[in-house]
Order: sequence, then structure tokens, then C-alpha cells
Amino acid sequence: MEQLSIGQYDLIYNAFSFAFATLAAATLFFWLGRSQVAPQYKTALTITGLVTFIAAYHYFRIFESWSDAYTIVDGAIVATDKPFNDAYRYVDWLLTVPLLLIELILVMNLSRSETVSRATRLGLLAALMVALGYPGEVAETTSGAWLWGSLSMIPFLWIVYELFVGLGKAVESQPADARGLVNLARWVTIGAWTFYPVVYFAALVGADGAMAETVIQVGYTIADIIAKAAFGVLIYMIAVRKTGAASTANAAAAAAK
Amino acid sequence: MEQLSIGQYDLIYNAFSFAFATLAAATLFFWLGRSQVAPQYKTALTITGLVTFIAAYHYFRIFESWSDAYTIVDGAIVATDKPFNDAYRYVDWLLTVPLLLIELILVMNLSRSETVSRATRLGLLAALMVALGYPGEVAETTSGAWLWGSLSMIPFLWIVYELFVGLGKAVESQPADARGLVNLARWVTIGAWTFYPVVYFAALVGADGAMAETVIQVGYTIADIIAKAAFGVLIYMIAVRKTGAASTANAAAAAAK
Repeated sequence: MEQLSIGQYDLIYNAFSFAFATLAAATLFFWLGRSQVAPQYKTALTITGLVTFIAAYHYFRIFESWSDAYTIVDGAIVATDKPFNDAYRYVDWLLTVPLLLIELILVMNLSRSETVSRATRLGLLAALMVALGYPGEVAETTSGAWLWGSLSMIPFLWIVYELFVGLGKAVESQPADARGLVNLARWVTIGAWTFYPVVYFAALVGADGAMAETVIQVGYTIADIIAKAAFGVLIYMIAVRKTGAASTANAAAAAAK
Repeated sequence: MEQLSIGQYDLIYNAFSFAFATLAAATLFFWLGRSQVAPQYKTALTITGLVTFIAAYHYFRIFESWSDAYTIVDGAIVATDKPFNDAYRYVDWLLTVPLLLIELILVMNLSRSETVSRATRLGLLAALMVALGYPGEVAETTSGAWLWGSLSMIPFLWIVYELFVGLGKAVESQPADARGLVNLARWVTIGAWTFYPVVYFAALVGADGAMAETVIQVGYTIADIIAKAAFGVLIYMIAVRKTGAASTANAAAAAAK
């Protein structure tokens, strides 16, 4: 790889630290918030916090790996003999990406059978998407990177289809107060997740090695924060609103007796 | 930078350790206190603790970075080849400063739409203020530092206006018991936050490099402790008083039946 400038190195270093702080703080926010939602939404918040917890752990490791991979000699960034471990990201995604889809399904509070079948199908598709992307990330050749990246797009597009067409009816059946937020959560999933292949392919087509590395690392970091922490805040808000809607409905039913 | 004296180095070192201890302890205080306030104030205390949690994390990193950045040779402080990472502060502020304004809005318990619109506007202004300050902090030239610092003052003054004029009516509608504290929290925000530009510009106009560094590091540390931990204690007291006022009102209503 071409040599990173100190500015590029520092930007990536600080982005990793920022991601760790955000994801760790988000984890505690979701778990503390469990006490404020109705029982049927507690599991959704538990998993929302698990996702950010797992990601915070991996950003801690990524930060350490990045620190160890470079050193400053005479004011220039020089690689040490410990290479930066890119696999942490894919290990993280293998765990967190299926869980992200499961938390969206859980907060929708569908029937038990629908929850199980949709969560299983979306979870497996997400794991397949990540597993196909990794050989592309570490491919020696550009054509290999294109091949695996393109294969990974197949489960990705299937997930998009499931979220929009498959879940369309389920979104309509959400309480009015929460419907807009559930819809927004679907869009954030698509928007943030599209960012990953964009970063992946942008790094393939553009720029020199050091700039490509900077785009990949900072781009994935921003996408992780949006897809996990910001998405989690939406899940939390949906759970709180649906809890409020349920207790208003109960109070009205009690008053009508 | 001119050489730091051992006294200056130690003062900064101990200030960072003090800040970590204070912010970590404050975090636990706020989260343990969640069980003592009414449900509508729990999120405010969750976020109050998140702010000090994020800041404690960053002071831990700042402390480590400071330790690594200098060494003692023949009784004198000498910089190592690992530069002190000033960016941690700005990364911290980018997260915590919007959250600080949001915790003040949340503890006021306004209508949902007013909470969302005010929290969004104040949060974005705060993030903009921090983002404009950073290029000034790392500027190579004094004129660059003045330019960015001055630009950062625009959102700052807008926030001050929002807190005083925009929130004026909302403060009047607080329970009598809590109104004084809410008002004080506004003043602490203005007072502590004014400290940051004062430190920033004081370091620009005055003193040699080592003294400027000491003023900046110790000044920002004191401002962080007041703006986050001491301000958080006010938020906690407001939540406790309003919980008391609500239960007194409920008891009176029950007695009148």
C-alpha cells in the first residue's frame, strides 16, 4: 500500500475511537431503556444493545490493531511488521447484521410463527451476504474482488425485497403512532446498508492505495454507526411509542367498563 | 512548542486523572439515581450518565496519550515521537455537547413535538459549533485559529439565544419547586460553555507555548467537569424535585376525592 499521510492516519485513528465511544454509550442507553418499555419489547432492546456491544468490542480491537500496525518515524507513517487485521469487521458483521434484522422483526411484534420464519430467513440471508463479501475484501486480484462483491449483492437485494414487499403488510398493521418510525427504520436499514457496497466498490475503482484505505475505513465506520447506533435509537423510540400506545388503549378499555 | 516544566507537566497529568475519576463516579451516581425518579425523567438521567460516561472514556484516552507523549530525561520533560492527540477532546464534544442540551430539554418534560424540534435544533447547532472549532484548534496559523474560532461563535451565540429567549416560556411553566433549578441549569450551561472560547482565545493571545498548553489543558478540563458532572447534578436534582412535586399533586388529588 502507498504510504498514509499523518492526516489520513490520524483521521482513521480518531474515527475508530469515536466509533468505540458511540457504540459503547449506545449499548448502555439501550439496556438502561429496557426498564421503560412493555415486556413484549424488552427482547428487541436487549438485542439492539447486543449489536452495539459486539460492535464496540470489535472497534476496540480494530483501534488497537490500527495503533499497532503503524508507527511514526521521522514524522512519517511507517507500517510495522504487525499487519492491520481487517477480518474483525467481517467477524463483527457476521454476528451483528443478522441480529439487526432480527431486532427490527422483534419490535414489530408479529405473530410468533411469522416472527420465527421471517427472522430465520432474513438472518440467514444477512450471514450469507457477509460471508460472500469477505473473500472479495481480501482478494488478491481486482477481478476476484468484483466477483465476490457481486455475489454478495444477491442476498443483499433479496433482503431489500423482503423488507419492502415481504414486510409491507406488517408495517401497515403497526399502531398509527409508530408506523412512521417503523417505515423510517426500514429506510435507514436500506440506506445505511447500501453504503457498504458503495464504499467497497468505490475503493475498487478509485484513487491510490492510501486514499482507498482511508475511504474504506472511515466509510465503514460511519456506516456502522448509522446502521447500529442510530438505527437502534429508532428501535428504542418505536418500543417506547408502542408501549405508550398500548397503555393508552388499556386505560381507555378500563374506563369504558 | 517550548519545553514544559515538570510542574506544568504534572499539573496537567493530575488534572486528567482527576477528571476521569470525577466523570466515572458521576456516571454511576446518575444511573443509580434513575430508580428514584418518575418514569418521565428516567431518559434524562440515562443521557446525563451517558455524557459523563463518554467523557470519562475520553479522559482515560487523553491521560494515556499524555503519558505516552512525554518522558523525563535528565530531570527535564522531553517530547517523545508520539504526539499528544488533541482530537480526543473534539471527538468527545461532538458527542457530548448535543447530548447535554438534549438532557436539559428532556428534564423540562415539554410536549413530544416541542421536545423533538428543540432537541434537534439545539443538537445540530451544538455539533456545528464543535465541528467549526476543531480546524481552529489544529490551525497552523494564528489567523486561521481566529477565523475558525470566530465562526464557531455563531452557533454558540445562537444556542445562547435559544436557551434564553426560546426556552423562556417553557421555564415559566415548570413547577415552582423546580423553576429556580431549571433557570440555574441554563446559567451553568452558558457560564461553563463560555469558558471554552475564553480558554481558546486566551491561549491564542497570551503567554509562551508551554504556558498556553497548560492553560488550555487545565482550563478545558475544569470546564468539562463543570459542564458535565456539576450540570448533571442539577439535572438530577430537577428530576428528583419534579418527581416529588408530581407525587404531592397526586396525593392531594386523591385526598380531595
